[in-house]
Amino acid sequence: MKLMQLYATMKSELQAIEDQMAQTVTSDLPILSETSQHLLKAGGKRIRPVFVLLSGKFGSYSLETLKRVAVPLELIHMATLVHDDVIDDAETRRGQLTVKTKWDNRIAMYTGDYIYAKALTVITELDKPRIHQILSGSIVQMCIGEMEQIRDFFNVDQSVRNYLRRIRRKTALLIAISCQLGAMATNAPVKLSNALYKFGYNVGMAFQITDDLLDLCGTEKAIGKPPGSDLRQGNITLPVLYALQEDGLKDRLLNEIALIKEEEVANSTAAVKLVRSSVGIKTAEKLADRYIVKALKALESLPDIPAKRNLADIARFVAKRSY
Amino acid sequence: MKLMQLYATMKSELQAIEDQMAQTVTSDLPILSETSQHLLKAGGKRIRPVFVLLSGKFGSYSLETLKRVAVPLELIHMATLVHDDVIDDAETRRGQLTVKTKWDNRIAMYTGDYIYAKALTVITELDKPRIHQILSGSIVQMCIGEMEQIRDFFNVDQSVRNYLRRIRRKTALLIAISCQLGAMATNAPVKLSNALYKFGYNVGMAFQITDDLLDLCGTEKAIGKPPGSDLRQGNITLPVLYALQEDGLKDRLLNEIALIKEEEVANSTAAVKLVRSSVGIKTAEKLADRYIVKALKALESLPDIPAKRNLADIARFVAKRSY
Repeated sequence: MKLMQLYATMKSELQAIEDQMAQTVTSDLPILSETSQHLLKAGGKRIRPVFVLLSGKFGSYSLETLKRVAVPLELIHMATLVHDDVIDDAETRRGQLTVKTKWDNRIAMYTGDYIYAKALTVITELDKPRIHQILSGSIVQMCIGEMEQIRDFFNVDQSVRNYLRRIRRKTALLIAISCQLGAMATNAPVKLSNALYKFGYNVGMAFQITDDLLDLCGTEKAIGKPPGSDLRQGNITLPVLYALQEDGLKDRLLNEIALIKEEEVANSTAAVKLVRSSVGIKTAEKLADRYIVKALKALESLPDIPAKRNLADIARFVAKRSY
Repeated sequence: MKLMQLYATMKSELQAIEDQMAQTVTSDLPILSETSQHLLKAGGKRIRPVFVLLSGKFGSYSLETLKRVAVPLELIHMATLVHDDVIDDAETRRGQLTVKTKWDNRIAMYTGDYIYAKALTVITELDKPRIHQILSGSIVQMCIGEMEQIRDFFNVDQSVRNYLRRIRRKTALLIAISCQLGAMATNAPVKLSNALYKFGYNVGMAFQITDDLLDLCGTEKAIGKPPGSDLRQGNITLPVLYALQEDGLKDRLLNEIALIKEEEVANSTAAVKLVRSSVGIKTAEKLADRYIVKALKALESLPDIPAKRNLADIARFVAKRSY
């Protein structure tokens, strides 16, 4: 089962969103159109627009209204990726050259700013102050999460709790509000939008943990960038933290991470190998599964409409992404 | 006459705005509070908040409402400065180390993102969709202006028109909407907010031209950064474009600019000297003056209240900043 099969029932709506995204970022300034289109073409899982659309089914569904939520949320996500690539010094993403590689850091920074601002022009077409407040508050949290990630680079003493707080801000929150705002935009009852927020939050946590697992266990072909990228840049993820709790492994792993930090090794291969041999992988998988269980539980209170089953299917898929 | 004397009647309101800005950017994450407070302490002319407050006098004045426009506009301006410093590789601004120098480029990028997002949390407290639309549209234009500036670095063939379009986006627009949104937020009639927009736009144009003149003719002490910074980074400003129209000077100036571009000279001193000896300075001053005349003209249709005289005084001051 591929993600796109799960999206099959929404094909035309998703195409409309894709078209609107392309139209939104089009600019008279060729360079901005080029960088933005380059990003759009690189694709992505589009999980945020999908969650917006499905959550909109719990209210008075209107594609026109939901587009004004889905397009900005995906564009904001895209803008953060461009800025992340500058920070991470990433050469490729999703198998494509990053903007900072194909152009340069300056272009990448302003492309991010531009896409972000364009996203706001779309959502401000909605006359719902509460939506704008939730969105801007979430973006603040995302920025804090990004900053925490820089702060925590190579910090091998951080707690699991610390990691979870960081990915909550960095990833889970935007996915959570994709569900919440989809419901709010279509005037679904507050009880439903709150339950959908909880669903999205838990899927988002599982999503990031799985992403971090993929970075350690995936192939370059599957993940679109060299595996071990996180460790190479000093991003200590959940499986690594668990591996560091393993007595027989701890010292060797600390040593390998120190070598990466001091740039005495060119890649993170040895460190990745150690983590893969540890219980860290299995333990992280289990935690991702637990988040999915919580996500499914959050759905229980929702009315039985097809969108509910779609959401559940996507949640189950997220924790099963192969590596 | 100093700018602060012109602000004397608004002292307590401006302090309230300063306090609100400090409170808004405060974060649980020490690094973000530090970078943001560093920026706030560096100060600035606060022309955007002042214009918001004075324009608010033409409607039903409410400091609480106007704070929600003034604080975000000044914070957005501040966020763009942090990102600009990354691009310009600027060591100092307003006599202070820039965030990118005191910390690093990564911190500067996310600090900008953070301050910008925080600005939005304040303005979204206002239930006026049109204000949000105007603001987001203007930010898009600002990003395009910044990108145009990169595109036009060292382009000695650009037209004056090209320069004017760029500074309109980069600077004049945000000053224009400071006036417009101050009036809109306090429910002033559309005719007034439109006239105030026109006033702000023309002051903004004069403001940027004067800034560009100061960069060529000011002392390091007066402008808080080494003079000639624009030329050193390849930013071809109005006086330079006019100087390039001077037959006896053109070839020598082109040659000096080429030396800067090819990094064969360490500074822009020789080029700056040539521009200062040209008619470029006087011609640019005259254009700035013409924008001020237009700004004052835009005020004519406004009711005769003290704020009108304040605005006129500030406009006259802008074109007279000494260098």
